[in-house]
Amino acid sequence: MRTALTDLVGIEQPILLAPMGHVSGGRLAAAVSDAGGLGLIGAGYGDADWLHREFQRAGRARIGIGFITWALARNPSLLDLALDYAPEAVMFSFGDYTPFLNQVRAAGAKVICQVQTLAQAQDAAAAGVDLIVAQGTEGGGHGGERSTLSLVPAVVDAVAPTPVIAAGGIADGRGLAAAHMLGAAGALIGTRFFASKEALGSTNAKHVIVKSRGDATLRTRVFDIVRDYAWPIHITGRVPLNRFAAQWHGREAGLSADLTRQRAIYRRAEQRGDTDTIVVFAGEAVDLIDTIEPAARIVERITREADDLVGASSLTKQ
Amino acid sequence: MRTALTDLVGIEQPILLAPMGHVSGGRLAAAVSDAGGLGLIGAGYGDADWLHREFQRAGRARIGIGFITWALARNPSLLDLALDYAPEAVMFSFGDYTPFLNQVRAAGAKVICQVQTLAQAQDAAAAGVDLIVAQGTEGGGHGGERSTLSLVPAVVDAVAPTPVIAAGGIADGRGLAAAHMLGAAGALIGTRFFASKEALGSTNAKHVIVKSRGDATLRTRVFDIVRDYAWPIHITGRVPLNRFAAQWHGREAGLSADLTRQRAIYRRAEQRGDTDTIVVFAGEAVDLIDTIEPAARIVERITREADDLVGASSLTKQ
Ligand SMILES: Cc1cc2nc3c(=O)[nH]c(=O)nc-3n(C[C@H](O)[C@H](O)[C@H](O)COP(=O)(O)O)c2cc1C
Ligand SMILES: Cc1cc2nc3c(=O)[nH]c(=O)nc-3n(C[C@H](O)[C@H](O)[C@H](O)COP(=O)(O)O)c2cc1C
Repeated sequence: MRTALTDLVGIEQPILLAPMGHVSGGRLAAAVSDAGGLGLIGAGYGDADWLHREFQRAGRARIGIGFITWALARNPSLLDLALDYAPEAVMFSFGDYTPFLNQVRAAGAKVICQVQTLAQAQDAAAAGVDLIVAQGTEGGGHGGERSTLSLVPAVVDAVAPTPVIAAGGIADGRGLAAAHMLGAAGALIGTRFFASKEALGSTNAKHVIVKSRGDATLRTRVFDIVRDYAWPIHITGRVPLNRFAAQWHGREAGLSADLTRQRAIYRRAEQRGDTDTIVVFAGEAVDLIDTIEPAARIVERITREADDLVGASSLTKQ
Repeated sequence: MRTALTDLVGIEQPILLAPMGHVSGGRLAAAVSDAGGLGLIGAGYGDADWLHREFQRAGRARIGIGFITWALARNPSLLDLALDYAPEAVMFSFGDYTPFLNQVRAAGAKVICQVQTLAQAQDAAAAGVDLIVAQGTEGGGHGGERSTLSLVPAVVDAVAPTPVIAAGGIADGRGLAAAHMLGAAGALIGTRFFASKEALGSTNAKHVIVKSRGDATLRTRVFDIVRDYAWPIHITGRVPLNRFAAQWHGREAGLSADLTRQRAIYRRAEQRGDTDTIVVFAGEAVDLIDTIEPAARIVERITREADDLVGASSLTKQ
């Protein structure tokens, strides 16, 4: 499957592992890369020791890294740390990436920018990024309001010839084939890879993904409030509804008023790995996921299914 | 382009005109049917004189009709009226359609049910409807929270062998081709057909669609409040942001408190066709729309583009 993405990054399959904080570690990134895609370590809120360890765990695999940009801005030395490992690509999401572009380019890594709106995509193209990920609201974790199916073709038209990757709601070959029809050069996939053997995160959390239904996910700020993360106001996290979300979503002021106590409750639940209280980020594509598998098998199945649907010839773009 | 939809309804192209209230009249429905799809008149909130007139305007074209089910329940004789015109199909959205199924079947029309969740789709399949439309939140007009890209394949898996139609965010051949990859037997299209020559609705309103950006649409209840329509609480209307929505969205209690005055303001704006105040329902696909065209040209272009993308052979399902 050759696309503008596979050509640009020098990979075999048009699949990027989403840089999921605390989930996409070195082993998962390496497994996706070894299977022909490109794995991106999730730098999350930023922790130098964690990053060193996960880059080392990736071994000799060609991988990349993704930052939450507003968190990186508070600790920009993490970019130096990452670039020392010579990543293939650096992805920026959620914040102003322009101060970091020259440094990434000078290091010879590709720049990927994940956007939630058409306007942001136009800005990213103007800034000259190498790849734009158009992220739909159905995706797991933090994101915006627009949906993948209508956002992707609009972005493709607006930023051509910059290649566009679809993200949000893709968990099988049908989703990858659909992304291809929309004009995307590939897919960035999160939730599906969370339910993989190599993903960091507890078995409990992975079982939440297997058991959840897409009808019962929502975008909420309650877990950012209780965990004390300063997300931009329009960016919320998509999660399967659990007891904590049911209790506080729509009652954010009440949560803030009772924060000390709720935070203590939350911390205790974290120790126990109690997913009735703690967050498991995941998207609407949970409906399409019912096994925890090796990442290589996921890459192989998605690309084979997409290939069958689209027909090998028409997937080849010259 | 042969699919389970074209076979079931006996049409040439896998496209249904969404039954947009006050927009999908007889002329538009006939134009879509004459171009090879199936046009559905939008019964909206229900008005017998309007329905007679629009059925007559459709002439001899084979068309169908779509009801807002909770509105039909208040005035069920409209179904008798519609069935007297021998529609090919009757579509139900938003409410309990089961009391009407036998009557529609006895009249020999196909039953189409539009759903917003996987659970609703499973109920519709259990009720034995002929076609299920899985409607994503990116669509124009009233709808729910799930997005097309991840809802459609989940519904396809859950309701097989009932054919599934994708709705929400589809305005060009890329969207139809993507829907096909997701396993849908076709697309139900609203917003794109609103910006057609034959659509009812003012030129002003059609220009709103041409000029709007997908980044600036939202789901809101404010127009239902001011127009006094009792929509179920989880169903909101997607609209391009205008002055009225900017003023009242998120301040619904304030709007309700000032209702008499705001309703008078709204009624006056309706007389003037002032789209800064009155609602124009439209979805995120507005990005993909920049002309007001004859419906036949829209059908022709969407199906030709999709055909080119998918390849004629693989679109043929036996
Ligand atoms: C568990 C989880 C954690 C995530 N963490 C991040 C993150 O730290 N940084 C980021 O840019 N995106 C993050 N995302 C969003 C992904 O980059 C991506 O947009 C999303 O997973 C795509 O939708 P999908 O989950 O339906 O595949 C996360 C997603 C999940 C599911
Ligand atoms: C102007 C407008 C009016 C609508 N009115 C109705 C309606 O009366 N009944 C209904 O079932 N759906 C209605 N819808 C929703 C459509 O059935 C359909 O789900 C939607 O248009 C699909 O998304 P799209 O607009 O992106 O094509 C309306 C949509 C629009 C744009």
